[in-house]
Amino acid sequence: MPITVVGSIAYDAVKTPFGERERMLGGAAVHFALAASFFEEVRVVGPVGDDFGESQLEVMRRRGVDVSDIERVTGGKTFFWRGEYGWDLNSRETLDTQLGVFEGFQPKLSQRSRESDVLFLANIVPDLQIEVREQLPDARFVALDSMNLWIDIARDQLVKAIESVDCLILNDAELRQLTGKPNLVSAARDVLAWGTQGSGSARDGSAAGRRGPSVIVAKQGEYGAALVTREGFFALPAYPLETVIDPTGAGDTFAGGFVGYIAAHPDQGLSGDLLHRAMAHGTALASFNVEEFGTERIERLSGEEIVARVQQLSEMTHFNGAPLKLRG
Amino acid sequence: MPITVVGSIAYDAVKTPFGERERMLGGAAVHFALAASFFEEVRVVGPVGDDFGESQLEVMRRRGVDVSDIERVTGGKTFFWRGEYGWDLNSRETLDTQLGVFEGFQPKLSQRSRESDVLFLANIVPDLQIEVREQLPDARFVALDSMNLWIDIARDQLVKAIESVDCLILNDAELRQLTGKPNLVSAARDVLAWGTQGSGSARDGSAAGRRGPSVIVAKQGEYGAALVTREGFFALPAYPLETVIDPTGAGDTFAGGFVGYIAAHPDQGLSGDLLHRAMAHGTALASFNVEEFGTERIERLSGEEIVARVQQLSEMTHFNGAPLKLRG
Repeated sequence: MPITVVGSIAYDAVKTPFGERERMLGGAAVHFALAASFFEEVRVVGPVGDDFGESQLEVMRRRGVDVSDIERVTGGKTFFWRGEYGWDLNSRETLDTQLGVFEGFQPKLSQRSRESDVLFLANIVPDLQIEVREQLPDARFVALDSMNLWIDIARDQLVKAIESVDCLILNDAELRQLTGKPNLVSAARDVLAWGTQGSGSARDGSAAGRRGPSVIVAKQGEYGAALVTREGFFALPAYPLETVIDPTGAGDTFAGGFVGYIAAHPDQGLSGDLLHRAMAHGTALASFNVEEFGTERIERLSGEEIVARVQQLSEMTHFNGAPLKLRG
Repeated sequence: MPITVVGSIAYDAVKTPFGERERMLGGAAVHFALAASFFEEVRVVGPVGDDFGESQLEVMRRRGVDVSDIERVTGGKTFFWRGEYGWDLNSRETLDTQLGVFEGFQPKLSQRSRESDVLFLANIVPDLQIEVREQLPDARFVALDSMNLWIDIARDQLVKAIESVDCLILNDAELRQLTGKPNLVSAARDVLAWGTQGSGSARDGSAAGRRGPSVIVAKQGEYGAALVTREGFFALPAYPLETVIDPTGAGDTFAGGFVGYIAAHPDQGLSGDLLHRAMAHGTALASFNVEEFGTERIERLSGEEIVARVQQLSEMTHFNGAPLKLRG
């Protein structure tokens, strides 16, 4: 099933202990789209400025990504982020954020982008997520990412947006912040109940309010990711790498692998098996992403490499339950 | 194979968001022994004071633990620790530590304790770990835990102790601190090389210096634990619990399950399969430990409960590698 993603298309300036890049292709929608493109056709919606290069568009086109809904705003500047990571890559400081064309961005979706069966609402202001969600009322699977900023300053709108999707993908600290629950499972269960309890927006019968999330993914950085549904719990460690060069975009790349895998298997509903395999593919994609700066590694990634890494990940997490010799 | 453990036997005063206990049975050797007792006979070596109760000894005896090498020091006071946990249980503050009988402790091992095939050196001053290690020169499997304090003030002795064991079990932050490597895999590989490079102590031919660690376990708190050997990597998430009451002793309980499982399967060498199953049993034991204060939950735990939780853990981490539909 084709996927539409709405979110940032950016230039990133990144410094890590292993080097730096002054102006590289980035943004949540870009990282997501490149990863998901291994599984399905992806249509990207988002604004760029006059300064956005043809070669950056070409990176996406080469992976079969539909860039026709990337809106070039005359006189505008592309979203820009500058950050620096600490020695263990677990802490990062944002040194500069220039919204550029994202100020006043109004998503315009072509008929083609509105017809996708799968929608990913990358991290943008919740009001825009709701607006886009309403333009795809019949999407079969909708996932959403967000960040601490929106929990701080636009919580009500964020909750409304979350209530309109099937799947919430957040960092575990953000999931705790969102719910006020320090325990990951409790926090996830809280959000799973939002849909079933029927809040105001869920009861008004509008397309965007009919469903609540049934799938919660907590991203845990170097520790991997956990999945909580009403049926159960699943977790995978991050694929172990001796050298991580640049974590930027890892979360969105994970989401691209996860959502992409689900989109490519429409006949499997949202079974546990499907979601577990989707977690494995998201984990594998994210691990490639961090091996080099920005999109550099994913640009030349092959399907065979993904398959091999998913297999390795399976071996690294599987144990067989041989009969236990217990004393009592 | 019987197990000897040397380490603290303590009274703990603990406050968590869910309640508090003023004076409960604790200590690394106790938590380890109770967990390992599900798999093998355990002999505990450590000092207590006049104030240590018969009922606390009885807790261990009821689980078949051999307490005859617990030395009661006349006029001494039992090791005491007071700590308080933050709202998410990931931060804790030590409010009081009274070494009591641990000051000047000289481990005296009976013939029986020296004949164990497996030895666990719980977190105590590295010099004592080395001393005990030398009293069991023929042990077939020796594991060691430590803490940031000894890395800070007794690093050389700690390294010497680690070089004399088969398995190092540390918190991941401590493993990073010990090696100065921010990356977990690199840090573990560093320690794996200590044994093979042949340092002074490893070359002198003494029993305690013949081997270096071939198994590294990084405890990751709420995220579970990772295993690094020369052959590969393995990781498991913590068993998901909606309510964690008291994390005190979780690491030692994990170690008890891990080492206990290995001790109970002497015919399997240190194969990957064995180590993976040992990780699963350590993870299961630790998850029970944190469900209640101190040793309360483990005291009434059954083998059937362990088996069931290991099975659940298998389901929560297993995915099958169904053929992937890739676009390219």
